[in-house]
Amino acid sequence: MEKKAAVEMNAKTWSGRFNEPVTQLVQRYTASINFDKRLAEYDIQGSLAHAQMLSSVGIINSIDLVAIEQGLSQILEEIRNNRFEWQIELEDVHLNIEKRLTALIGDAGKRLHTARSRNDQVATDIRLYLRASIDEITQLIQSLQRALLDLAEQHIETVMPGFTHLQVAQPVSFGHHLMAYYEMLGRDIARLLDCRKRVNKLPLGAAALAGTSYPIDREMVAQLLGFEGICLNSLDAVSDRDFAIEFCACAALLMTHLSRFSEELIIWMSPAFNFIQLADRFCTGSSIMPQKKNPDVPELVRGKTGRINGHLVALLTLMKSQPLAYNKDNQEDKEPLFDTVDTLVATLRIYTDMLSGITINQDVMRQAAMRGYATATDLADYLVKKGLPFRDAHEIVAQAVRFAENKSCDLSELSLSELKQFSSIIEQDIFSFLTLEGSMNSRNHPGGTAPAQVRAAIVQARKELSNH
Amino acid sequence: MEKKAAVEMNAKTWSGRFNEPVTQLVQRYTASINFDKRLAEYDIQGSLAHAQMLSSVGIINSIDLVAIEQGLSQILEEIRNNRFEWQIELEDVHLNIEKRLTALIGDAGKRLHTARSRNDQVATDIRLYLRASIDEITQLIQSLQRALLDLAEQHIETVMPGFTHLQVAQPVSFGHHLMAYYEMLGRDIARLLDCRKRVNKLPLGAAALAGTSYPIDREMVAQLLGFEGICLNSLDAVSDRDFAIEFCACAALLMTHLSRFSEELIIWMSPAFNFIQLADRFCTGSSIMPQKKNPDVPELVRGKTGRINGHLVALLTLMKSQPLAYNKDNQEDKEPLFDTVDTLVATLRIYTDMLSGITINQDVMRQAAMRGYATATDLADYLVKKGLPFRDAHEIVAQAVRFAENKSCDLSELSLSELKQFSSIIEQDIFSFLTLEGSMNSRNHPGGTAPAQVRAAIVQARKELSNH
Amino acid sequence: MEKKAAVEMNAKTWSGRFNEPVTQLVQRYTASINFDKRLAEYDIQGSLAHAQMLSSVGIINSIDLVAIEQGLSQILEEIRNNRFEWQIELEDVHLNIEKRLTALIGDAGKRLHTARSRNDQVATDIRLYLRASIDEITQLIQSLQRALLDLAEQHIETVMPGFTHLQVAQPVSFGHHLMAYYEMLGRDIARLLDCRKRVNKLPLGAAALAGTSYPIDREMVAQLLGFEGICLNSLDAVSDRDFAIEFCACAALLMTHLSRFSEELIIWMSPAFNFIQLADRFCTGSSIMPQKKNPDVPELVRGKTGRINGHLVALLTLMKSQPLAYNKDNQEDKEPLFDTVDTLVATLRIYTDMLSGITINQDVMRQAAMRGYATATDLADYLVKKGLPFRDAHEIVAQAVRFAENKSCDLSELSLSELKQFSSIIEQDIFSFLTLEGSMNSRNHPGGTAPAQVRAAIVQARKELSNH
Amino acid sequence: MEKKAAVEMNAKTWSGRFNEPVTQLVQRYTASINFDKRLAEYDIQGSLAHAQMLSSVGIINSIDLVAIEQGLSQILEEIRNNRFEWQIELEDVHLNIEKRLTALIGDAGKRLHTARSRNDQVATDIRLYLRASIDEITQLIQSLQRALLDLAEQHIETVMPGFTHLQVAQPVSFGHHLMAYYEMLGRDIARLLDCRKRVNKLPLGAAALAGTSYPIDREMVAQLLGFEGICLNSLDAVSDRDFAIEFCACAALLMTHLSRFSEELIIWMSPAFNFIQLADRFCTGSSIMPQKKNPDVPELVRGKTGRINGHLVALLTLMKSQPLAYNKDNQEDKEPLFDTVDTLVATLRIYTDMLSGITINQDVMRQAAMRGYATATDLADYLVKKGLPFRDAHEIVAQAVRFAENKSCDLSELSLSELKQFSSIIEQDIFSFLTLEGSMNSRNHPGGTAPAQVRAAIVQARKELSNH
Repeated sequence: MEKKAAVEMNAKTWSGRFNEPVTQLVQRYTASINFDKRLAEYDIQGSLAHAQMLSSVGIINSIDLVAIEQGLSQILEEIRNNRFEWQIELEDVHLNIEKRLTALIGDAGKRLHTARSRNDQVATDIRLYLRASIDEITQLIQSLQRALLDLAEQHIETVMPGFTHLQVAQPVSFGHHLMAYYEMLGRDIARLLDCRKRVNKLPLGAAALAGTSYPIDREMVAQLLGFEGICLNSLDAVSDRDFAIEFCACAALLMTHLSRFSEELIIWMSPAFNFIQLADRFCTGSSIMPQKKNPDVPELVRGKTGRINGHLVALLTLMKSQPLAYNKDNQEDKEPLFDTVDTLVATLRIYTDMLSGITINQDVMRQAAMRGYATATDLADYLVKKGLPFRDAHEIVAQAVRFAENKSCDLSELSLSELKQFSSIIEQDIFSFLTLEGSMNSRNHPGGTAPAQVRAAIVQARKELSNH
Repeated sequence: MEKKAAVEMNAKTWSGRFNEPVTQLVQRYTASINFDKRLAEYDIQGSLAHAQMLSSVGIINSIDLVAIEQGLSQILEEIRNNRFEWQIELEDVHLNIEKRLTALIGDAGKRLHTARSRNDQVATDIRLYLRASIDEITQLIQSLQRALLDLAEQHIETVMPGFTHLQVAQPVSFGHHLMAYYEMLGRDIARLLDCRKRVNKLPLGAAALAGTSYPIDREMVAQLLGFEGICLNSLDAVSDRDFAIEFCACAALLMTHLSRFSEELIIWMSPAFNFIQLADRFCTGSSIMPQKKNPDVPELVRGKTGRINGHLVALLTLMKSQPLAYNKDNQEDKEPLFDTVDTLVATLRIYTDMLSGITINQDVMRQAAMRGYATATDLADYLVKKGLPFRDAHEIVAQAVRFAENKSCDLSELSLSELKQFSSIIEQDIFSFLTLEGSMNSRNHPGGTAPAQVRAAIVQARKELSNH
Repeated sequence: MEKKAAVEMNAKTWSGRFNEPVTQLVQRYTASINFDKRLAEYDIQGSLAHAQMLSSVGIINSIDLVAIEQGLSQILEEIRNNRFEWQIELEDVHLNIEKRLTALIGDAGKRLHTARSRNDQVATDIRLYLRASIDEITQLIQSLQRALLDLAEQHIETVMPGFTHLQVAQPVSFGHHLMAYYEMLGRDIARLLDCRKRVNKLPLGAAALAGTSYPIDREMVAQLLGFEGICLNSLDAVSDRDFAIEFCACAALLMTHLSRFSEELIIWMSPAFNFIQLADRFCTGSSIMPQKKNPDVPELVRGKTGRINGHLVALLTLMKSQPLAYNKDNQEDKEPLFDTVDTLVATLRIYTDMLSGITINQDVMRQAAMRGYATATDLADYLVKKGLPFRDAHEIVAQAVRFAENKSCDLSELSLSELKQFSSIIEQDIFSFLTLEGSMNSRNHPGGTAPAQVRAAIVQARKELSNH
Repeated sequence: MEKKAAVEMNAKTWSGRFNEPVTQLVQRYTASINFDKRLAEYDIQGSLAHAQMLSSVGIINSIDLVAIEQGLSQILEEIRNNRFEWQIELEDVHLNIEKRLTALIGDAGKRLHTARSRNDQVATDIRLYLRASIDEITQLIQSLQRALLDLAEQHIETVMPGFTHLQVAQPVSFGHHLMAYYEMLGRDIARLLDCRKRVNKLPLGAAALAGTSYPIDREMVAQLLGFEGICLNSLDAVSDRDFAIEFCACAALLMTHLSRFSEELIIWMSPAFNFIQLADRFCTGSSIMPQKKNPDVPELVRGKTGRINGHLVALLTLMKSQPLAYNKDNQEDKEPLFDTVDTLVATLRIYTDMLSGITINQDVMRQAAMRGYATATDLADYLVKKGLPFRDAHEIVAQAVRFAENKSCDLSELSLSELKQFSSIIEQDIFSFLTLEGSMNSRNHPGGTAPAQVRAAIVQARKELSNH
């Protein structure tokens, strides 16, 4: 019976001019309560600030304000304790809370919606939600960066074959390799913070689309809610979803980075590579093959990149060609956004945890760096430093590599006289350049793989992180 | 305590070679039970056929078969009555059911998984699910087609302005306009049926990736499950997700069609157009503007196009560059697929329902067709039939339109002498060509807008639909 | 001066009602001639059939028909010999050809456009183009399938480690692995042929959007152009771009398959794997590292998957929410479509060629199959066949694997007594099951990796291919 | 013969270890010269800075530097005058220029490539190109913003019906409506400037992937080229394409905004709306319908949104799962990026131009605002200000709207006694609230549609623009 009353109340919301209520099918199709109830805390937060402003400028009196504050406080309590009864007949989080408020405090509850519309209300809620989500995600990225720094620090001197085209290119420090991901994540944070600036504007006060005839104080509400400013055009305020798209674009790049890292972890853990082992707790087995230990977590992360790219496309498609101002299409913004946040949060947490449980097979990495003529460039550079033009040196080394390949040995295993065949200016000192460490140490400039540089980069990174 | 036991059982599934169980975080991240339990009926269906085959070829005995059949039957009952206790520790729908089966019937339950792997099992489940979904969706499209035919039939003679570039082009039958969507939906069905052929192949028997050493009879299983054939390569069988992508591509086109229809409904319901009214039960109002009646349903449909495009991109991204054979990434195929099916089913239902509640403002449509010189082409055709080359006729009419525009009247409102200014071969008979009906009736060939043709097209369509 | 004349002619096309010509900027922005001239041959083909029909039903006389045929024949000649002067002022391929025709043959040229519009003309051109492209691509896929069969046939008995999760799973025939791609490509062909049915319908006769008042014979035109039928609704005919989207979806799946194959080739060619070498002519080197030999071709193929996914998204976005009938947006359909065709043609050609230049390091593959306990499942199956429930056998083998791992040896290298520790039912005959060949041969059912099955699959495939 | 020499030279670039040259097919497939020659100016700019640094730290001598500078200067001249002969055998812009340089100045040319690789060279070129493109685009957006301000300023007092759900909602100032797009474009600029920070870092010095053994001075090169800093990790420097993706995401949002504006222009120009006319020079006609004047430009802009969304997806797909460091896949980054820049530049130019040629039908807009009960909210607000709770007022007005609808008149056309039926507190003063101007003026707070607020917003915007 209480439910029926609710329906009637709902029906009354706009049915003065309507001949018939929406059908069950339509109700289910158009209701957003199943997913937007997640905005409840932000909705209440926004309503509290709105009420305070309404009272401050005299639109409601202070008795109503106190009632609203007490009512909303009780509702928040009910929601947190899972005692709030969400009703699909009441469509969305806003009406669910408002109806409950009116049930609790009477007419004062009906006054809360003065000078606002659900159009600017929901835009405010999402921005509050997204701002909090960005803050959480930024923190989680920093935790992952810290885990990377910890691992990199242990492996400043660990040699691995640097790859281009998945072919052995030059020896690099494994710590240096890890620091590439530190850089990517740093850009992710920078992008999210730039996005946050645009999220952090107050749409409330735009009302349905044109503003309101009440003497509202938008700056006050902005300040109460911690916004950096107000949306300067009411039509834009209610229809803008740029921030959601921009956030999803940031998320897609972050997941792209993790997909690249995951791809490497998966390849490195393949027996042919055997560079690393993930801890058992991040792996699962097979229902049929008793020997299997599969890197499920990085595989899922790689797969979830698709999910996030998909959400970005969903939102871009959604907004394409929408005329001003608010259209119901926009209700479709929430699920992709929520799932993007959830995916990032879970993925960042598990990734950080996973990095702490990784075992590095240093010997295997080192041996792999010995295959593939990783120091060929060093031989070429040696020749250039003795006076040859680079292009000529490059050609000489190519011949030497071919010779060594036919002998199935590394360049460093050729004798001096064999090397001299290709250029008479090669001397005994060449052999120090052809070692993995010699090669690695020689790339000693900012950004280079020399351990000294990697160490400096880590120190610098730690300093930056502690400043955040 | 029962839960703890379950964890231990699960741990044992592959932990013989594992040192530590997966963490809670990993468990939540890697488990699929929250969404793949929707496959339960299909999983049981597949297991029953598998068991029957195992027994038929002598891999299990008939006592075990009976036990398995009874056990699975009970489990199906429990699931349907919401009495089945899904456990996240058991990862997925397959292990949840298998563990329960073993609890119910003992060792026979442990024998069910002989000669299969979860890799081929899940591929079978999804194909069964998707086949049933395609059948349901095909039916729903046909219902929508029928609703279109009903509406079109009422409006064979209703004149509306045909648009190109949203400018008035030529008068068309409103029934003809609706039949354009009938055609689009017909292609959607054809595509889904083509897709169904490729869905309807049995992967079971591929086991983990290479087939199995048991003397299985795949053709028998295929027949029991109604598959049209078997997947001919085991590596492909476990890793193929083409069918999911192809289905989502079909779905994206279907939603694109409905987005176009929705766009038209929204524009037509805008007061400036005022061609139609949607029934109140498909509209909602505003929390702030008491006069509003908004076409929420078509707006949401238009918005949901983004969701489906996004799922298609998600799946394409997912499969890009995956090496053979099965990788855990593939677990990410399910949620986009399920949501695509759900969205199509709900959208088709509501659309069919909505069409029955649409009111057509025939007079307004007709008046709109009078604006914009919709019969200008008819004047040009008139001139051509009197001997002018088309390009010259086109130019003469353009001049006449300009003249009429300056006079703010329609071509049919010009006098004969005014018309003769532009070409002396124009005679009194021209006026019958310049009427809306004259124009419409003249396009009398298959595919044209003449009411006779539209009527024939509807008859033909009804015949086709009844053959399905 | 000739250019000026052309502009005037162009201006006249519709400027009877226009006050001013389009600006240069607008001309460049709206003209499609730079890319749609590629449709010239199909435009002429369509015009010839249209003229023949116009004459057959008496809309033009036979003298005009002959003139049109001769004029178009000369224009085709000019285009093929690069002597045709395309003019951006004439917007598109249709007007360029029509104006030239009128210049060559006078009034008859002006009569050609009777009873058609550029809306149905361009739709016809694209369908003719796409039909031819599908036929070419289908042929090229078959060539690639043949190359696969040739390679697979040589490697029916070649053992490689089958992977799941990039972890060694079970030994498989390399020929079997290659045949997985044969299957994928077979589905690509099937999809393209299904798509071709929907491409192969005639839109001509729809005119601008509503059909035409001339007594045209659409079936005759369809027959002349080899179409399987006519588009049954004129509004749909001019605005439908389903076929382009469906084709791009097929293309995206084809590229996805090739991206997977490319990923494998790249990994296999990495020194740690060293399973294959690509011929030097498919690789490039480095401008700095003299030793490098990079698998550029598969890397580019992998990268080009993005391009095709992008084109699919472009077309879906394009069509979203477009009201009927033709809108200028649709001009944007061509470049993505053309580039998709070009990319597929070039990629299929180079891939087929590349397969013939691949070297397989059989010994390395075989050794890799020895790592990773690839026959663990065989031990489990052995135990099951001796009476253990599968789940128990699975657990026993997991323990044995762990024991062997600690001893750093393969299962087959354990002694019988060591094996018996885990289950007393293990006997001497186990060792034949633990060999790579024993394992591979045992998967002897349709779709399984047993060489006998692979051989049969190849025979079957050759039969199918010769039937096409 | 010169061509043959070139091939040989090219062959020598890396063929010391290669047995055979690449085939023609491979050459065409892998060469990028057809599109990357557009980077020539930036390549030369980068080479000049690199050479200056090489000389400054003593890697090359000053004589070589002078020769390089003169040679590159001549090459730049040749390229600008279209006298440079690009050769596909030389793959890309880098080798084409280097070979020409060596031909012109001998060994000094061969020394230029010391301490760099094409991997860091191309990354530098694209960043220089993109930085310049961002600067150009930012300027063009500002021009469009100025055009918006000019138009908005003329229409501060022009009343139009504000829409939500394409239903009449409340009267708004047309200037206010235009200012919504000013806001969107402002965010686009802000995003591009944020992106520019991340573009504007120097990758040069990363060499192939690990840095170089030469004593380079990266900060010096950064300063010479105007970069704000250096990429801090060499592996990241050569493989990072975040900036291209981020730019395309910004571009997609910009096009989304223009697609929304275009949708509105198209709807507004439809005869039923007839709010505006675009100048003839931005429209085209029909080849068949002499009366047509089509808004081609906004339609194409709307369509081109698909193209840009597609490019974004292409680049995201491209980077997904790429292992470090450089892979050939990355060559596919350029065409989408270039086309995105070209599309934005052309679209922004034409849009700015188009706005200056728009005619506003103020009377029609005003009349449209009279339909749809646009002032219903004002009546509700009036009641609230007289003491009713908002929800009750909302319901009363809904009843009044229904009453007026049945009488086919506006609220303002009801008599006071009719209005009093619904609430006795309504007095004579209500009628000033129910006028369009009364409604509009009452929304008088920052962001609201009151003309005073719109005027202030325009003043503020002009100030901001002049500060850029």
